[in-house]
Amino acid sequence: MHILIIGAAGMIGRKLTQHLLETGRLADKPISSIDLVDVITPETPQSTGAVITCRQADLSDPATAPALVESRPDVIFHLAAIVSGEAEADFDKGYRINLDGTRALFDAIRTQHDTRSYRPRVVFASSIAVVGAPLPYPIPDDFHTTPLTSYGTQKAICELLLADYTRRGIFDGVGIRLPTICIRPGKPNKAASGFFSNILREPLVGQEAILPVPDTIRHWHASPRSAVGFMIHAATMDTDAIGPRRNLSMPGVSATVGEQIEALRRVAGDSAVRLIRREPDPTIIAMCEGWAPGFEATRAKSLGFHAESNFEEIIRAHIEDELEGVQ
Amino acid sequence: MHILIIGAAGMIGRKLTQHLLETGRLADKPISSIDLVDVITPETPQSTGAVITCRQADLSDPATAPALVESRPDVIFHLAAIVSGEAEADFDKGYRINLDGTRALFDAIRTQHDTRSYRPRVVFASSIAVVGAPLPYPIPDDFHTTPLTSYGTQKAICELLLADYTRRGIFDGVGIRLPTICIRPGKPNKAASGFFSNILREPLVGQEAILPVPDTIRHWHASPRSAVGFMIHAATMDTDAIGPRRNLSMPGVSATVGEQIEALRRVAGDSAVRLIRREPDPTIIAMCEGWAPGFEATRAKSLGFHAESNFEEIIRAHIEDELEGVQ
Repeated sequence: MHILIIGAAGMIGRKLTQHLLETGRLADKPISSIDLVDVITPETPQSTGAVITCRQADLSDPATAPALVESRPDVIFHLAAIVSGEAEADFDKGYRINLDGTRALFDAIRTQHDTRSYRPRVVFASSIAVVGAPLPYPIPDDFHTTPLTSYGTQKAICELLLADYTRRGIFDGVGIRLPTICIRPGKPNKAASGFFSNILREPLVGQEAILPVPDTIRHWHASPRSAVGFMIHAATMDTDAIGPRRNLSMPGVSATVGEQIEALRRVAGDSAVRLIRREPDPTIIAMCEGWAPGFEATRAKSLGFHAESNFEEIIRAHIEDELEGVQ
Repeated sequence: MHILIIGAAGMIGRKLTQHLLETGRLADKPISSIDLVDVITPETPQSTGAVITCRQADLSDPATAPALVESRPDVIFHLAAIVSGEAEADFDKGYRINLDGTRALFDAIRTQHDTRSYRPRVVFASSIAVVGAPLPYPIPDDFHTTPLTSYGTQKAICELLLADYTRRGIFDGVGIRLPTICIRPGKPNKAASGFFSNILREPLVGQEAILPVPDTIRHWHASPRSAVGFMIHAATMDTDAIGPRRNLSMPGVSATVGEQIEALRRVAGDSAVRLIRREPDPTIIAMCEGWAPGFEATRAKSLGFHAESNFEEIIRAHIEDELEGVQ
């Protein structure tokens, strides 16, 4: 089993790589090699089995995609993207990488398909940003994609391409709409959605965190561990069961900020909760009022995808995976 | 008022041009000039007012779009497309013209927008092919787009681009999802959906027509006259009322083939109906079982778009517009 991960240097890419190296197998077959690719050279993880190749490459360079699929990986994880804020600030760069880069990848696969009967499994990381307010709660699986950002537009377009290329037999694609990942490990970042992780991660290690929105804001989350689980399941599941609608809203936990904080209190006590400082930020409030409150995810659940069932589990997953079980 | 029609040689393009020349005005302003563009040079219509320019151009040629918008038309009607069957048979051509051609047009407008504050109204002819079976009846406005053809995929992608470019203020776009146009004037053609028009148009002039599907097939229709009405309304309406969801399923008439035939009987009698010969075609039956049975079109109707209210009106519109009122 030969695997390619594009966007391997990101948080999910690194955790996915780690998981693959630990299990050593995918779809009951031993993993012989993993190609790790990103715009910055991914760190080389320790491997006792699979041959690891790390390379720096930009998917918007026309030479990149053909070179990546030349070795015909059995499974391709496509996680690379310019993030929401940057795609909004830089119109050309967002379209060039998120849309043209993805299409270049799909077309490079098509060339190998046409000449050498190649047909890999392709797992595409889509996003809940494909929907846009006003949104019902919960959002049904058949709700239309009317994104309110260029990032969401680019993801929605790639979903359509993935479904069409799959329908034509060029590859076997599964698009997974990831919830907002929480708790993101690492340091607080400046992403507008960063506070969802910050207000849990920082207090768990005795640090203060700022909450810029009211407790009533409801949003849709899954742990990094669940995100890796979605990827693995999408790579190994029987895709005949999906049918032509290849893009699936992943399961997750819908919670208000208030419910998040109460989960933190149950896990880590009042002293942790007291480290959350409320500093309302009208810009962030305005943005997150348009974000998805939660999805039915009926199809994904019936196809075997699963996430946490409540916010305490999300916090405990973080403690187990990032704090060595100690809090 | 300076108008550009891309795809002007097609049936809707010619009727739209005729309508504009007859009224001489759009949005209460006199029409000074109309540029007619298609892959084959459009016929020059008679004009006593507006200056008509006809040109042959291929939107997939990178030089085309910048040249078309150089004169900064106030309204652009984009009707050009490779049709469904051809886009399915020729993957590259379909994507090159239906997707890349449209994107080239939008980006040419963006260049004029960035350099010269240009911001035209853009009316984009989308299609009910953006949805794909299994479909509810009626299909709600917020139903997802999961096309089952490359043509439908390309139209759905262009809808997303249109909404994003509009949201960013580059142009003022309205995407209109046209029902299957019925009764198409002219000779029977080989389009799989051609029989919907054939079984009415041919018997109305004493000719036999072949019906390849059962009477129970339900589909979604509007007259050519309504299609032109949609275009004019989309070009002149107050777009502030639409909001960011810029692609609208147009109203129409949902009817089974049996209901179509009964409408023909009421308008033209048993002798016309007897000219319909049933010759079931399994390929066409399989295709049209996946087609849209009808839409709610609630938003479009509330925004002032209107179509016929029953199939008799569709037949009478054909008699008035194509047969000089005589049947």
